[in-house]
Order: sequence, then structure tokens, then C-alpha cells
Amino acid sequence: MRETEVIERVRAMASAGPRHRELIRGIGDDCAIFRPESGWDLVFTTDFVLEGRHFTLETHGAEDVGYKALARSLSDLAAMGSEPVFCLVSLAVPNKLADQWTRRFYEGLLTLASAYQVTLAGGDLARFDHVIADVICCGRVPENQALTRDRAKAGDRIFVTGTLGESAAGLRTGQGKAWKRHLRPSPRVEAGQALRNMGVVAAMDLSDGLALDLRRMCDESNVSAELMDSLPIARGATLEDALYGGEDYELLFAASEQMKLPRAIANVPITEIGTFAYRTDVPVSFRGEPLEAAGFDHFA
Amino acid sequence: MRETEVIERVRAMASAGPRHRELIRGIGDDCAIFRPESGWDLVFTTDFVLEGRHFTLETHGAEDVGYKALARSLSDLAAMGSEPVFCLVSLAVPNKLADQWTRRFYEGLLTLASAYQVTLAGGDLARFDHVIADVICCGRVPENQALTRDRAKAGDRIFVTGTLGESAAGLRTGQGKAWKRHLRPSPRVEAGQALRNMGVVAAMDLSDGLALDLRRMCDESNVSAELMDSLPIARGATLEDALYGGEDYELLFAASEQMKLPRAIANVPITEIGTFAYRTDVPVSFRGEPLEAAGFDHFA
Repeated sequence: MRETEVIERVRAMASAGPRHRELIRGIGDDCAIFRPESGWDLVFTTDFVLEGRHFTLETHGAEDVGYKALARSLSDLAAMGSEPVFCLVSLAVPNKLADQWTRRFYEGLLTLASAYQVTLAGGDLARFDHVIADVICCGRVPENQALTRDRAKAGDRIFVTGTLGESAAGLRTGQGKAWKRHLRPSPRVEAGQALRNMGVVAAMDLSDGLALDLRRMCDESNVSAELMDSLPIARGATLEDALYGGEDYELLFAASEQMKLPRAIANVPITEIGTFAYRTDVPVSFRGEPLEAAGFDHFA
Repeated sequence: MRETEVIERVRAMASAGPRHRELIRGIGDDCAIFRPESGWDLVFTTDFVLEGRHFTLETHGAEDVGYKALARSLSDLAAMGSEPVFCLVSLAVPNKLADQWTRRFYEGLLTLASAYQVTLAGGDLARFDHVIADVICCGRVPENQALTRDRAKAGDRIFVTGTLGESAAGLRTGQGKAWKRHLRPSPRVEAGQALRNMGVVAAMDLSDGLALDLRRMCDESNVSAELMDSLPIARGATLEDALYGGEDYELLFAASEQMKLPRAIANVPITEIGTFAYRTDVPVSFRGEPLEAAGFDHFA
């Protein structure tokens, strides 16, 4: 297939998908055009999905790769407490995948896009020896209300949505519910917005494992964290999966002592896992020991 | 180097660069935060730069790759007549390039970013066997004034900025001014905004060669185009370079018969190269023959 044909097909698929009212021009020009309503802050994120690094063609279907590529970026939007608006998709594929594989990639991506009313507004297309996807997402949040990772305070309780370690367990075992969750993670979009409405101000998503991501939140907020002895580990997952496993895409957040939180949001449980304290030499401690900031380091 | 160290260095480099007043949070959280002023449309584009496809490590310096990665996206912003605001940069590199090469990549990118007051607001970082960069740019343009490629009309004259074929000639010869232009193309940001202020409404950038890009403009505008016999071919370039060579990053635009245009904008010459007409079976003709829509096809 020629580039023009592929672009035309993506354009047709995108135009059959959701169209946000602020997105006044999508695929087909040098740029997408967005007319923002006033009173909103816009949030932007971009995430790679790389063959051999985040997936392989043998183990991951094209639909799954497309689904997950968008899910990674939507998880970042969720962590800001924002409402997803549109995405741009840069995709490079080998020639032999230009036709069917590419179509199925966009089908998987648009399945998730439709669930959250995300407009596919543009992107780039190239040929390469390996599959590379980079998904850029824009969300919006009422002015000055974005959740950030630098506002956890000493005395705040630490919470997570859902369960931990399931994606790592799925990657390890390659089967069952855990493998399905690894293939098609659920970005906590509803939870992020609900937490913001409840008054939560500090949050981030768990993409590289609790130990490493909690450390990042502690560093940005200049606090230390003490974890509880027991954590909401997923069925089939080990403690190590829960602490150091990547790609859970749950939300990690802080809530003051007084704040009342529900036991679940949109059927996703909310679990207290520890307490923030004034910063000490030990950024994160667990069962009386310093917890190493290990996890999925892209350069390690 | 570990991922955290690389990110911290990029964050320091970015914070020493330009900071747009609407960009209220840059690198360091799940998303960048942008608070748009009212009365502006936002435009978005994303472009890959892939090792072995757009450059090689042997022939292109790290600074040149960073510079060009941003230039490609700025050229799209220029084609919309917009003012650049911020960029996100996704970069994947092999381990051995994580330190010095990556630093120089960002230095080259920030050199161009500083020239146009573009804030480096975020991105993604990953390890991969090959260098991959994806640069996302946001620009702004007064509401409803973005230049688009679908508004050329029969009777309009066709113009280009600058000269054609120089980048292809540079790629072919690997030396002199043409090679420098291939390495560090100049996005026509000032010209795009000036043309919009003069009342031009239809424009696009020349990234895949005049023959292919003009064909795209004709298709989107539902017109045909007749080129003049002589074109502003760059010194050292052939007619084929000018018609089919990629990466000139000049602007192609339409202007009504009445519209007065200067001979140059910001020292870049403006040259009339043809006329648009009602759509016929021949979308683009040159010297009495149909001109094939050939050029840099990423899938060919």
C-alpha cells in the first residue's frame, strides 16, 4: 500500500470515531486545529510503545498494541484528573505490516478512544524496520485543578486504586486474567476525575512500579513515605511484582487525614497503603527497612 | 546513565530555555499543563525522525538530528500561519548514546527552540536499538485564521517561498551549502505568519517534493494546477530535485489574482510558479504534460 492510501483509510476510520466539539479540524492538513473553551487548563502527554521493548509481534496482537498505546497516555491524563479530549498517533511499521496489521492497530486504538470519547486528530506515518508508536494525548481540567505529584504533604495518607503487580505477573506467566490485563490495561480515567472532585490534589500513575513511582512522588513533594505491611497485591502476583512490576496503570494519590474517600470508584477499589511524613534520609520505607527505588528503568 | 539522571538533565536544559507564559507546568509530572488565552486556535503536529530513514549516526551529528527534528514540526506550524508555543519530545536511544549523544541532541533542538521561543514542555524517554525521535509541536493562531490546504481556488496564483531541490541535492552530494541546508532546514515561521497577515488563506509546507505536495493541495482543494515552465531551482539542484526531492520545508501557497505580495519576506524570496484552475482529469501539469504525483513516499 502507498502512504496516501494508508492515510486515507486512517482518516476514514478516525472520522467514524468520536469527534470532540473543540476539535475543529482533524486529519488531512499540516496540523490539527483545536479551539479551546475558556476556563480549562489543557494537559499533554506522550508515550512510546516500541517493538521488542514494550511488546513483540509474536505475543501481542495488533489490536492489543493499538489499545495499549492509547491506554498508556490516557493513564497519564487520568493521573492529572483530566477529561480526555484528543490524541495524535505517530506510527512507523515495516512494509509488510502496512496493510492489515496497521488497520487492526487503529481498530484497537479506536476501541478505547470511543470508550472515552477521544478524537483521533492526526499524527505521522512512516516505514521502519520495527513497529514504533508514539501516542500524544490532550486532556482538559477546570482551571488550576490538575492533580500533580508535588503536593503530597506530611501527614497525608497514601492510597492506590485497584490491585498491584498483575501486569508483571501477566508478563511472567503469559496467561489468564493477568495476561489480559497486561495486554489491555484500564486507564483510571473515571477515578482520576472523581478524586479531583473529592478534593484530592496530589496524584500520579503507576507505570514503573510502586517502589520507583512512590519514590518519585516523595522527591517531587519533598516528603518521605512509610508503607503499610500489607498491600493490595493482585491474585497470582508476588510481592515483588507489586513493588517493582511496571504497567499496572493504577493511580497513586495522597489524601489528608480528614478526607472521606469511598471504598471504590467506578467499581475500582481504593486502598490505603501508607502515610507521608516529613522528609528524612529514607525516602520510602517498608516493613522497617528502606525500600530501594527499583522498578522499570528504561535505561537500566 | 540511569533514566532519572537523563530526565533531570533534560529538565535543567529545558528550564534554561524559553518559557511561554501560557505553559504553566513543564517537565516533571505525568503531563505538561497549558492554560490557553482566549481568542486563539491551537494547532498540533507530530513528526518522526528515524535513524536509517531520515538520518544516520555516521553522517548526521547529534545536534543536527535534534535541530532537524524540531524544524520538521515547526515547518508544519509555519504552514498553518501560526506562532510556535511549545513542544514535547519523545526520544529513544541505544544505551551507549544515553549520555553525550542525548545531551547534544537536546542542545541542537534547544538552539532552534530558543530562536522561536518554543518551550520544551515534556516528552518520553526510552531505550531502543535505534535512535527514534518524535517531536510534537503546538502553535497558536488568531481564531479562525489558520492557513489550510483546502482553500485554493481556480484562478489563484501558486507561489513558493525560497528555492527548491536544495535538500535533495545536499543529500546527493553530501557537501557545501546544500548539505548544510539538508542538515539544518529553516522552517518558514516568519513567512507563514506574514502571509496570513496579508490575507493568504491556503498554504502547506513542502516536505515530500513539489510534485507530490502540490498534488495533495489540489486534491484537498478540488482544483487542478498548471506550473510555469521555469521554477526557482536552488543552485546545484536539478529539475528532478526540485520536483521530487523531499525536505525543502518551503511554503507552498495560493494567492488571488488581485493580492499584492512582496518579493521577499524576512529575506526569503517569494516566487510565482503557476496557476490553479477548475479541476480536470489532470491534477497537475508541467510543460504541457501531466506531472506524476511522485516524491518521497514513506511507504514506497
